[in-house]
Amino acid sequence: MNVKISRISNGLIVATDPMMQLESAAVGVWVNAGARNETAPLNGISHMLEHMAFKGTKRRSARDIAEEMETVGGFLNAYTSREQTAFHARILKADMALALDILADILTEPTFEPAELERERQVVLQEIAQARDTPDDIIFDYLQTVSYPDQPMGWPILGEENTVSAFRRDDLFAYMGANYRAGGMALIASGAVEHEDMLRLAEEKFAGLKPGAPQEVLPAHYVGGETHVGGDFDQAHIAYAFPGVSNLDEDFFVAQVYVTALGGGMSSRLFQEAREKRGLCYAIYAFAHSSKDDGVVGVYTGTGEAEAAEIGAVVAGEMASLAETATVEEVARAKAQLKSGFLMGLEKPSSRAEMIAGHLFTYGRVLSVEEMSEKLEAVDAAAVRRFGAKVMATVDPSVATVGPAGKLERYGIFAGRFGLKPMVRAAE
Amino acid sequence: MNVKISRISNGLIVATDPMMQLESAAVGVWVNAGARNETAPLNGISHMLEHMAFKGTKRRSARDIAEEMETVGGFLNAYTSREQTAFHARILKADMALALDILADILTEPTFEPAELERERQVVLQEIAQARDTPDDIIFDYLQTVSYPDQPMGWPILGEENTVSAFRRDDLFAYMGANYRAGGMALIASGAVEHEDMLRLAEEKFAGLKPGAPQEVLPAHYVGGETHVGGDFDQAHIAYAFPGVSNLDEDFFVAQVYVTALGGGMSSRLFQEAREKRGLCYAIYAFAHSSKDDGVVGVYTGTGEAEAAEIGAVVAGEMASLAETATVEEVARAKAQLKSGFLMGLEKPSSRAEMIAGHLFTYGRVLSVEEMSEKLEAVDAAAVRRFGAKVMATVDPSVATVGPAGKLERYGIFAGRFGLKPMVRAAE
Repeated sequence: MNVKISRISNGLIVATDPMMQLESAAVGVWVNAGARNETAPLNGISHMLEHMAFKGTKRRSARDIAEEMETVGGFLNAYTSREQTAFHARILKADMALALDILADILTEPTFEPAELERERQVVLQEIAQARDTPDDIIFDYLQTVSYPDQPMGWPILGEENTVSAFRRDDLFAYMGANYRAGGMALIASGAVEHEDMLRLAEEKFAGLKPGAPQEVLPAHYVGGETHVGGDFDQAHIAYAFPGVSNLDEDFFVAQVYVTALGGGMSSRLFQEAREKRGLCYAIYAFAHSSKDDGVVGVYTGTGEAEAAEIGAVVAGEMASLAETATVEEVARAKAQLKSGFLMGLEKPSSRAEMIAGHLFTYGRVLSVEEMSEKLEAVDAAAVRRFGAKVMATVDPSVATVGPAGKLERYGIFAGRFGLKPMVRAAE
Repeated sequence: MNVKISRISNGLIVATDPMMQLESAAVGVWVNAGARNETAPLNGISHMLEHMAFKGTKRRSARDIAEEMETVGGFLNAYTSREQTAFHARILKADMALALDILADILTEPTFEPAELERERQVVLQEIAQARDTPDDIIFDYLQTVSYPDQPMGWPILGEENTVSAFRRDDLFAYMGANYRAGGMALIASGAVEHEDMLRLAEEKFAGLKPGAPQEVLPAHYVGGETHVGGDFDQAHIAYAFPGVSNLDEDFFVAQVYVTALGGGMSSRLFQEAREKRGLCYAIYAFAHSSKDDGVVGVYTGTGEAEAAEIGAVVAGEMASLAETATVEEVARAKAQLKSGFLMGLEKPSSRAEMIAGHLFTYGRVLSVEEMSEKLEAVDAAAVRRFGAKVMATVDPSVATVGPAGKLERYGIFAGRFGLKPMVRAAE
């Protein structure tokens, strides 16, 4: 990787990552603001703005945007997370100028027409309903809310029916004015692209962005607890979370190795115990989610109504055993998986652009492949055990369930397997 | 692309697709047999075999397989479709010999230990439950069953609780003996790989495969009709299908262009009408599924209980209007989308290997990029209109719903919008 980074006059970062063997490129604008930048009555507005950006500008109707991009075979898409919003395209190399023109247009001159807002509100309400019909997805919203209650960090990215129903056009303009500032945005391209071309086009097309940075966010404050949502589902969907690490934590890579050894592949402890040995589930995995200032590690599984009774002991048991006995071999294996996943990601322009955005907003620079490899290599079994012990010391884990989870062990029993003086720890 | 194709002595195809700029490769064995090769009592056995192949061989335990692959950072996975079963790995280039050793081992000497079978049966039953909890996925099983009732083409790939509960070890050996024959299998690698190395390793490791081809499948026979499955979901999930084209049909590329123009992107007719103009749904798209001897085109959407009332007229109305008025511009746009999607797919080794498998089993050779581009370019607006008119002449469409779809128009009304003398066609 040989990423070139400049800023145009208003402060917008322009980063170019040439992969000259390709015929295509991934290009996008990443905004360093998302659902965490919302106030309670405006929960979901980052995501609504992401939708409304496509609904027409001073120069283009919604249909024009779609047709111009698709006429050249381009794919235009966007996503909203808690800390970022991204608008990105996959295009053939000849179409970079068009892609930048459309991206600049939707990000600097959207019109947010009232009639379009009313229609798109209905679309987003359908998207919320669709999310509720996907239990292995929506459960992470419930888990987040129980981990971070009554604060922006815990709100659902899509918003709620009542907030989405109330957004006004002026809310969109105000939110955009406060948060879509050149100093907190990055235009990034990976693939068949030259930095000088990008920079020239960026100066030309993104001059309309206002300087400055997005508004500060409230610090995240982990609380923990439990939430149980019913629903006529076949499986009990169960998710656990524990305090983890922020993006800048010195244990960031330790946490990655820890969750990979715990539940990151077929050879991981949870897969072996819960699926291979006990046949309790089809899906079980561990994850680490990190933000600017906080993070969690956790486990998801989908299991049967009866099988749910065993899950708490299995998850806590494997976590306890990993904290005590993480081996040199399994830590090496977890690092090899992470490293090859990372190297394979480098072969995809869209993954690279996304990684560059993450680095720029986290570190203010792009880490080299060597630097990341070194940080990963430096994680040893002792560090994983130490980190595992820290997670085991959690006194207030988070538990979310969807579906028939009545047989899951009570929160007090599960929490009692953790904490400074655990009551019951081992799997039966 | 410069694919080299050989056969080793037992008839196994070895295809190599070098991408020498990469540090990794995708490698897999594709078997030209899947759920269509099953008898009714053994529905789901292709998929169970796919699982059981990972559960131990004469030389390796299930844990050995997982650990050996993951120790080098490799990712091993598999999938079963109606016509194919694939076992594939993503590896760094130095680990090709190990990947081939493991693939050969699990495909030639699995032990199907009874205790492992009992445990894996529980895992697959959980997988079936998980599929039922994913309405926008399971609906395609229901749609398939109504399109192709009482025949292997219409059965669910995962099988049913009663069939999966009854599989015996001997069933696995018998199914494998009949269908995992070298003449119907292909070892394919895309990425950092040389053909001569692959061929030498394949002769060494896959010599144990029996020659011959898989058993013939019963011809598919489209019937059509309706099926409604309840469930306490927020959205009405609705899927339609109509007779389409086989992989070898001369209209194969016409069908692809047709569904792309109908519902393949933001500029497509269905997206514009149902989402952009009416705000009825978040997700709506059209698809073409083709098999050796048959195929369908269709539409999926997830919508609200009230909004479902409009969907039949909108889908039929856009299909009718496309058949009558497909424009040169929209057909060019659909072709550009398909072409760039295809070119971007060529940048990913796993997509390339999968495409090569499809070509080998369909055409007996790998089509060149130029040949595919020409076939696609040859599709014009007149062909799309002609194809659209053929679809509109369907007298027995298939309709599947999951969730609160009680307000969807009755089957007779919807079917009446099609057929040789349609009763009601236009959207209101």
